Amino acid sequence: MKNSDATRGITRRRLLGVAGGAGAAGLLGGGVADAVARRWAGPAETPLTATGATAVPFHGRHQAGITTPPQAWGHLVAFDLVPDAGRPEAAALMRRWSRAAEAMTAGRPPEGDNQIALDAGPCSLTVTFGFGRTFFGKTGLEDRMPEALVEMPPFPGDDLDRSRSDGDLWVQIGADDPLVAVHALRVLQRAASGTAAVRWQMNGFNRARGATERPRTVRNLMGQIDGTANPDPSDPDFDAKIFVGGATGGEAWMDGGSYAVVRRIRMLLDHWERLPVDRQERVIGRRKDTGAPLSGGTETTPADLTATGPDGTLAIPGDAHIRVAAPASNGGATMLRRSFSYHDGHRDDGAPDAGLLFVAWQADPTEGFIKVQRKLAGGDSLSRFLKHESSAMFAVPGGAEDPDDYVGRSLLEP
Amino acid sequence: MKNSDATRGITRRRLLGVAGGAGAAGLLGGGVADAVARRWAGPAETPLTATGATAVPFHGRHQAGITTPPQAWGHLVAFDLVPDAGRPEAAALMRRWSRAAEAMTAGRPPEGDNQIALDAGPCSLTVTFGFGRTFFGKTGLEDRMPEALVEMPPFPGDDLDRSRSDGDLWVQIGADDPLVAVHALRVLQRAASGTAAVRWQMNGFNRARGATERPRTVRNLMGQIDGTANPDPSDPDFDAKIFVGGATGGEAWMDGGSYAVVRRIRMLLDHWERLPVDRQERVIGRRKDTGAPLSGGTETTPADLTATGPDGTLAIPGDAHIRVAAPASNGGATMLRRSFSYHDGHRDDGAPDAGLLFVAWQADPTEGFIKVQRKLAGGDSLSRFLKHESSAMFAVPGGAEDPDDYVGRSLLEP
Repeated sequence: MKNSDATRGITRRRLLGVAGGAGAAGLLGGGVADAVARRWAGPAETPLTATGATAVPFHGRHQAGITTPPQAWGHLVAFDLVPDAGRPEAAALMRRWSRAAEAMTAGRPPEGDNQIALDAGPCSLTVTFGFGRTFFGKTGLEDRMPEALVEMPPFPGDDLDRSRSDGDLWVQIGADDPLVAVHALRVLQRAASGTAAVRWQMNGFNRARGATERPRTVRNLMGQIDGTANPDPSDPDFDAKIFVGGATGGEAWMDGGSYAVVRRIRMLLDHWERLPVDRQERVIGRRKDTGAPLSGGTETTPADLTATGPDGTLAIPGDAHIRVAAPASNGGATMLRRSFSYHDGHRDDGAPDAGLLFVAWQADPTEGFIKVQRKLAGGDSLSRFLKHESSAMFAVPGGAEDPDDYVGRSLLEP
Repeated sequence: MKNSDATRGITRRRLLGVAGGAGAAGLLGGGVADAVARRWAGPAETPLTATGATAVPFHGRHQAGITTPPQAWGHLVAFDLVPDAGRPEAAALMRRWSRAAEAMTAGRPPEGDNQIALDAGPCSLTVTFGFGRTFFGKTGLEDRMPEALVEMPPFPGDDLDRSRSDGDLWVQIGADDPLVAVHALRVLQRAASGTAAVRWQMNGFNRARGATERPRTVRNLMGQIDGTANPDPSDPDFDAKIFVGGATGGEAWMDGGSYAVVRRIRMLLDHWERLPVDRQERVIGRRKDTGAPLSGGTETTPADLTATGPDGTLAIPGDAHIRVAAPASNGGATMLRRSFSYHDGHRDDGAPDAGLLFVAWQADPTEGFIKVQRKLAGGDSLSRFLKHESSAMFAVPGGAEDPDDYVGRSLLEP
């Protein structure tokens, strides 16, 4: 570690002074790079851009990584406590994890750093922690398990791999730089050593910052714009739908928290891509290129589920995904979807092992994901192009508000 | 596909006009994003930055993706010809592949687009094609196989998985956006349908553009700066060492080409990270934080292999990686290393399935990789932290210079 603090100090100072320089970098990159890109040699140093310089605060009422804009790269990891670990060991782990996450998200090296991210900025790194149902029994905290953390019911068409489902603890890592993300993954894994072991791990991705002019939504591997109908944080009922507020009694530790539903959803891309685009659009209910609902307008125009076409039939078909998933079709059920795509190569049958690492956030899964998925699994035209291969649900406590605090303290230190 | 051309036309026009706007985006991103990053809602549109707007020309004397700066995201894929495919089918495939690659690298949708990358810029996409030894027999071109494309000799410590080694055809995809890269992967796979099937596929990554101030070299998963001693394209003998020039006779089709050695090298990261940093530095021969050789100076100072420390011993130990790998230790053997890191989760034994997708370029593998690796596999201190798990070598022809040309034409249409 020698000199790493000094080096990091310089980097941080440069980072804080970057705003004035980033403009020039953007200009040079966009205008001149074409001419020089075939030659590798470049300037000895280039300023960090927003990709590197952006820091997302670790401390706050809510954990980061829920309403944070989706990052380019993500790791989802579930851990199981080792047999001898109970509540004190879990508390110590959450303290170590929080301390390491706080340092890394601020662009500082954590204790015992392996230096993978040494000269990178914080790159919008977020680390989000959650607890699965099995965590509470193993730590003697059965009576404090929230009622909302129900057992996930089976859905028609589920084809779940239990070894890649569930888990005592969950960590969601997101960053706009792959090495910053993998650095956090390694550091948190090492910090868990002796207390918790990896149960499953999945790697995902989204658009890189600055790769597209469309900032709020991304395309998935079906080529479809995803997330258009997400609730907006400025909606008056956003917090009530997504975050737990004013929890009382044994569940007070969930105040400011949320519930994450995590599903590995493989897309049958070979089948999907054989479907003509106009039929793909009728499966979804939106235009593929613009994301506009088939009832007209632009991406952000609300879908008119009653609109009909010139031939008198519904503009958005009866089994279209956006109709079946719409809050209006589900008694107002709302969730914030914040997923990553994945592509892990190929399966033995030759099909791409690719799709969506679906992550949905809500104040109550029974009134969010479970309600919507019951409808989708039954009558959604998109379902025949998807395979749900794993499933998990986690109680994600509120953020550590105090600089000395750690995530989960009010559960683990009663 | 309806309207995709029109939409793309708008995107392209915006893209060409982006240089003036990118500065503002960088400024906003770096200076203000901290305050708003916890809230997802943002402006309706943001301009492309250099990440999205940079295009690397497909046509040229050399293929792109060799001296192109390393991109953030990469796919390496090997294909085998299907039993009925011979030279005409392979020629038609190379024509389809070149046409699709040319469109996508310019930010245009390819024929039959699946629209995954529809509203993204070209994002420095490169696509590089190569031929393995087995390609020549299957296409009746045995007599045109270059002498330099030798069978890879075995090295001590090799632990190769044949199913992830070799291959008739090789495609290297690199881009600064994950969805642009995976779009190219899907499009090229579909274009191969009926002619060639995927033999193996690997996903890798490097630093995102703008994530660090260090533009020429990246860190690998050992935390070590990698690529410092790479030859520089401005070196007077660079072209002679890396590219085939003036090839004659049956090998004239390799003029302007190069040879790629591709090895999946797993890093024993748990072992490595247990080693104190000063011992890691003696294994490599460089400072971990700055990349400077242990003989002194900065990252770019040439290593002084004769320098001694205060105690009279060699500053760069006798078995240090940079000493054993140095051209001076190998009769001037030079290769251009342009690798990706990978992290595919965990192996059954609990160890991380992570390391380097090593890619090395040279005009003659016998005088490049093979010479150096013979030395390394014998006496390199780093070798005990590495496992070579797959190996392949490909003849990568020169670029398609003419807009109507395709890669490999002078081999396939004699």
